[in-house]
Amino acid sequence: MIVVMQAGSSEEQIDAVLARLGEHQLQGHLVRGAERTVIGVVGAAIPPTLKEELEHFTGVTETLRITQPYKLVSRELRPADTVVNVRGVEVGGNRCVVIAGPCSVESEAQIMATARAVREAGANMLRGGAFKPRSSPYTFRGMGEEGLKLLAQARDETGLPIVTEVMTPNDVELVARYADLLQIGARNMQNYQLIEEAGRTGMPILLKRGLAATIEEWLLSAEYIAAQGNHNIILCERGIRTFETATRNTLDLNAVALAKRRTHLPVIVDPSHGTGKWYLVPPLALASLAAGADGIIIEVHPDPDRARSDGGQSLNHANFAALMPKLAAVAGAVGRTL
Amino acid sequence: MIVVMQAGSSEEQIDAVLARLGEHQLQGHLVRGAERTVIGVVGAAIPPTLKEELEHFTGVTETLRITQPYKLVSRELRPADTVVNVRGVEVGGNRCVVIAGPCSVESEAQIMATARAVREAGANMLRGGAFKPRSSPYTFRGMGEEGLKLLAQARDETGLPIVTEVMTPNDVELVARYADLLQIGARNMQNYQLIEEAGRTGMPILLKRGLAATIEEWLLSAEYIAAQGNHNIILCERGIRTFETATRNTLDLNAVALAKRRTHLPVIVDPSHGTGKWYLVPPLALASLAAGADGIIIEVHPDPDRARSDGGQSLNHANFAALMPKLAAVAGAVGRTL
Amino acid sequence: MIVVMQAGSSEEQIDAVLARLGEHQLQGHLVRGAERTVIGVVGAAIPPTLKEELEHFTGVTETLRITQPYKLVSRELRPADTVVNVRGVEVGGNRCVVIAGPCSVESEAQIMATARAVREAGANMLRGGAFKPRSSPYTFRGMGEEGLKLLAQARDETGLPIVTEVMTPNDVELVARYADLLQIGARNMQNYQLIEEAGRTGMPILLKRGLAATIEEWLLSAEYIAAQGNHNIILCERGIRTFETATRNTLDLNAVALAKRRTHLPVIVDPSHGTGKWYLVPPLALASLAAGADGIIIEVHPDPDRARSDGGQSLNHANFAALMPKLAAVAGAVGRTL
Amino acid sequence: MIVVMQAGSSEEQIDAVLARLGEHQLQGHLVRGAERTVIGVVGAAIPPTLKEELEHFTGVTETLRITQPYKLVSRELRPADTVVNVRGVEVGGNRCVVIAGPCSVESEAQIMATARAVREAGANMLRGGAFKPRSSPYTFRGMGEEGLKLLAQARDETGLPIVTEVMTPNDVELVARYADLLQIGARNMQNYQLIEEAGRTGMPILLKRGLAATIEEWLLSAEYIAAQGNHNIILCERGIRTFETATRNTLDLNAVALAKRRTHLPVIVDPSHGTGKWYLVPPLALASLAAGADGIIIEVHPDPDRARSDGGQSLNHANFAALMPKLAAVAGAVGRTL
Repeated sequence: MIVVMQAGSSEEQIDAVLARLGEHQLQGHLVRGAERTVIGVVGAAIPPTLKEELEHFTGVTETLRITQPYKLVSRELRPADTVVNVRGVEVGGNRCVVIAGPCSVESEAQIMATARAVREAGANMLRGGAFKPRSSPYTFRGMGEEGLKLLAQARDETGLPIVTEVMTPNDVELVARYADLLQIGARNMQNYQLIEEAGRTGMPILLKRGLAATIEEWLLSAEYIAAQGNHNIILCERGIRTFETATRNTLDLNAVALAKRRTHLPVIVDPSHGTGKWYLVPPLALASLAAGADGIIIEVHPDPDRARSDGGQSLNHANFAALMPKLAAVAGAVGRTL
Repeated sequence: MIVVMQAGSSEEQIDAVLARLGEHQLQGHLVRGAERTVIGVVGAAIPPTLKEELEHFTGVTETLRITQPYKLVSRELRPADTVVNVRGVEVGGNRCVVIAGPCSVESEAQIMATARAVREAGANMLRGGAFKPRSSPYTFRGMGEEGLKLLAQARDETGLPIVTEVMTPNDVELVARYADLLQIGARNMQNYQLIEEAGRTGMPILLKRGLAATIEEWLLSAEYIAAQGNHNIILCERGIRTFETATRNTLDLNAVALAKRRTHLPVIVDPSHGTGKWYLVPPLALASLAAGADGIIIEVHPDPDRARSDGGQSLNHANFAALMPKLAAVAGAVGRTL
Repeated sequence: MIVVMQAGSSEEQIDAVLARLGEHQLQGHLVRGAERTVIGVVGAAIPPTLKEELEHFTGVTETLRITQPYKLVSRELRPADTVVNVRGVEVGGNRCVVIAGPCSVESEAQIMATARAVREAGANMLRGGAFKPRSSPYTFRGMGEEGLKLLAQARDETGLPIVTEVMTPNDVELVARYADLLQIGARNMQNYQLIEEAGRTGMPILLKRGLAATIEEWLLSAEYIAAQGNHNIILCERGIRTFETATRNTLDLNAVALAKRRTHLPVIVDPSHGTGKWYLVPPLALASLAAGADGIIIEVHPDPDRARSDGGQSLNHANFAALMPKLAAVAGAVGRTL
Repeated sequence: MIVVMQAGSSEEQIDAVLARLGEHQLQGHLVRGAERTVIGVVGAAIPPTLKEELEHFTGVTETLRITQPYKLVSRELRPADTVVNVRGVEVGGNRCVVIAGPCSVESEAQIMATARAVREAGANMLRGGAFKPRSSPYTFRGMGEEGLKLLAQARDETGLPIVTEVMTPNDVELVARYADLLQIGARNMQNYQLIEEAGRTGMPILLKRGLAATIEEWLLSAEYIAAQGNHNIILCERGIRTFETATRNTLDLNAVALAKRRTHLPVIVDPSHGTGKWYLVPPLALASLAAGADGIIIEVHPDPDRARSDGGQSLNHANFAALMPKLAAVAGAVGRTL
């Protein structure tokens, strides 16, 4: 850490900072410039709160952190890619994965039809929401455990591992009993009790990036899970909130490429939420793989016009099937397989 | 609701929309323009999902909602201001309230010293965190129930009602046993299980706006609480996330003035989180009251340099005491009292 | 256009709106719902200001526009792709273009070396700034006409058409004498005198999206040029400003795919400014082509460590050459050529 | 400046940085920590481009600037407030100023009526646009010189100094002949030729903050003017673009309070553009003065329903007159006069 003193700061002010560093068993190394003095902080263990602690010492202008605040998930710690195994499907290896399915599980007919269709088209996993976070209290909030049972039934028939969202700590045990991959939604990326509880199951976790979360905050939330001893974490970029309203969110593929450098964890992309419009899903799904994503998760519905949630961003079966060979072609173009 | 058809949409496409409206017992009223046709939707109860349901019908360009999606909290429903009573302190009446205290409860000495200081300076309530959401798993996360007991002790001595955050549904019962006003933090504004559980206590709820939440989403979260039969809701603007990084967040006083028009609920402001810098807190606290806020909530610490969280945005006792008469003057200038 | 009246609006208020519509030779078509009345506006020519004009009539809640405000550049008007010819290089056809070169022209040696290198690697055009907009008045602002002459010399030797920025109306004639494609930078996207003056040359224009410009505003700026009778417009997405600071900007590939639907104009992408980090340029360049862009524009410098501007986001010659076959592979995967 | 080396950087990499510093007559001061080495840069004159120059040296993680990049406008350079004299009206002193008038000059009757009304209500200056930047090429773009003449006529009768926008360098001489205060609009905050040309007149300049400009960029644009030897600069906050769409922009009063600390220049606020809704103008105007602004600029129109631009955010004469005593009360509450 670097402590920047104000122009004209006094020796007493500098000494006060040095003394505080001493209390933490740290040394301060002075660099006296023409205009101002800066203090380099050296020592074994810099407390995470030191930055804000020093920031408002009299005579201090600002403090600058020079290392990332996450450790376990950083690529500095572990240079090789982590591969997460989800009931036999590897995520983070050379093969890109495709996860597909409806936003919400709505009925046996619906989930079975889509599970078969995406299986046939070549998808690797089935998605489907049984517990749905909704902005309005008056909208459909999912089928609950009944939905989980239908997902399990679809898995039994198709062999596809299933991913579904868990929204609150009390439901973790229930959802974990059915799911192969536990999804933490964007609204819950900083719901720490939930992600710790999910982490403690040891199961693979799909951690969606929050709508307004920085890449650093996203990786810090992954660090919460890793700190439970669970490294089976898959990150998912799903669009951030910006001033642009012509699309539902702004899919941030910069974040995918940057996250791949900063962490050893696999990163996938959700172009359905990331764009909010079904006709933008194919080009952005292709772009995601080209940007280096380890897979994509897409909403597919047998009849999007009658979907109970997010129909406008869902592909129908035919459009999904048409997309798969294009995904394979782009994966091949960047040296991977599908 | 208005359904806008594409230029050149066919009669069959229009009929398909009308048929779907009929399934919902709604009527469609056609307006045929030179370029395109729009359909006005008329009927008793428009399902909340109708908008997205119709949006991707073939031939439909977009659908436009013409009423707000929240009902119970809207000023259309209840034109008069709601006044929330927090253990005898009224919020939302002519008198503006000042809530003050440390970010985190750290020790008996600290919370008692600050409770006495803010009481003496004229504050109406005491704030203090016992459960703290933190971006990093390696930082101080609060004293837990021990902190709640210290808050209760401070209330016993000073008479100030206490406000403290609850972070997860399982803690609601515990926190509610001590608190007079249950705070839902910004990260949890859309943690629906939590806000419903908090709402069911019937206690006053302080609902902070999420970092990236629109005003509409904020009011919809309030609607979740109101839908539990609990109208004791106080909204709190605390800054939104924008491109500007010179301040921690961007305090949105437009949102305060607009929320006061759209809802009957009281609205207060947190300039400490809203700016992130203690020296910006006084001007923005004054601005908040001038903009029509019903009160402010400010971080005060006996020794901000040694605070375990958010020290950089906390006022010390002397600065808080110096601010109070200025707040009173501005309150008076806009026809209110402190 | 749709005019939404408030719940409980009076007949007088409705009549006032209808009367105003009549003044503009428009008809209002009433749709009376259970809660409120809306008025559909029908007529030959709706004035562009009508929306704001009606918005604050007493009794009006809001007005909703149902057509895009741009006409000449819209795909509704012209369904087929426009192909812009830049000194023999076609932009917008099946072949994707690659424009490469340094941020700023710095010396004869520099620009000639890079021109030869990018030519050899297969680039189709040469970029280079002679007039540079810089946030600080104390930084290098380009070589001016001397830089233009060096660009022309590079074109003479390599045959590559040249693209360079013009920053102010008075320089349009000068820059147009040298350039093959006139670049309007992001800061000037709404500098209307400049874009009209540039448009009047009839030359191909490269219109970069502003840092905070919506897709609609971007297309409206293109409309300014088209309204001068010049349809030789190439749009360029180059990243928008968001809360994320780990990358210089957030490259918005949603916008590329959406713009391709809304306008017949070609759209290219600048991943150098869009990411701000040279090591993110290759993955985002690949993603751009996968998303449907008609080409990319990349900063290349013989020695980025010594570049006078934007070195951190420039590829060196070797990295650029290594990228080209990957671009060709992705172009091929989406059915195009390079 | 601080150069942060990567963990495990080699001595050769460190030496390369030191050597480059030597080329600039700067010294590098090494601070070797447990994990990594940082280099403090010491010397008389650090080139503005050094940061980006060093940022991509092999072995360098990042470079951190520790001084503000603006000099002439910084409060460090000149601690006392600058007071700008606009034809006898002082801006930046103890008295807050109120500038009022229509968005656009539309007719003699309109501008004279409003000039008289705002004068009578106590305004200090008259605003009115003769050249208007508009997103669409099809909307009213102002009366041009005819509008300037009408403004001058209004000044002759009322004695109010006039402020009006200039949009392009070629118009500076013309507009300067009529105006007392030259306005640079938000879209042109980084139109450097324009602001330099305006600066060279030596006249007072009203510099609006760009829609997506950071506070630092805003002050750097002011630095461009100051670098012309013209210190008669008034900054104007007018709202930034965020994800919130319920208001036209998000008025950033944090920026006002922070700018007042960072620069000696006066800062005023435009709540009309900042909110986009006339009924939000009074509360935000009051908030602006409470936050420490040196004045406000408000749109006032004799008949907002018939305004040719921005009618929805304009006060009518009566509402403006009603606001003035409230502004005076809030100014008084913060120790100032109106």
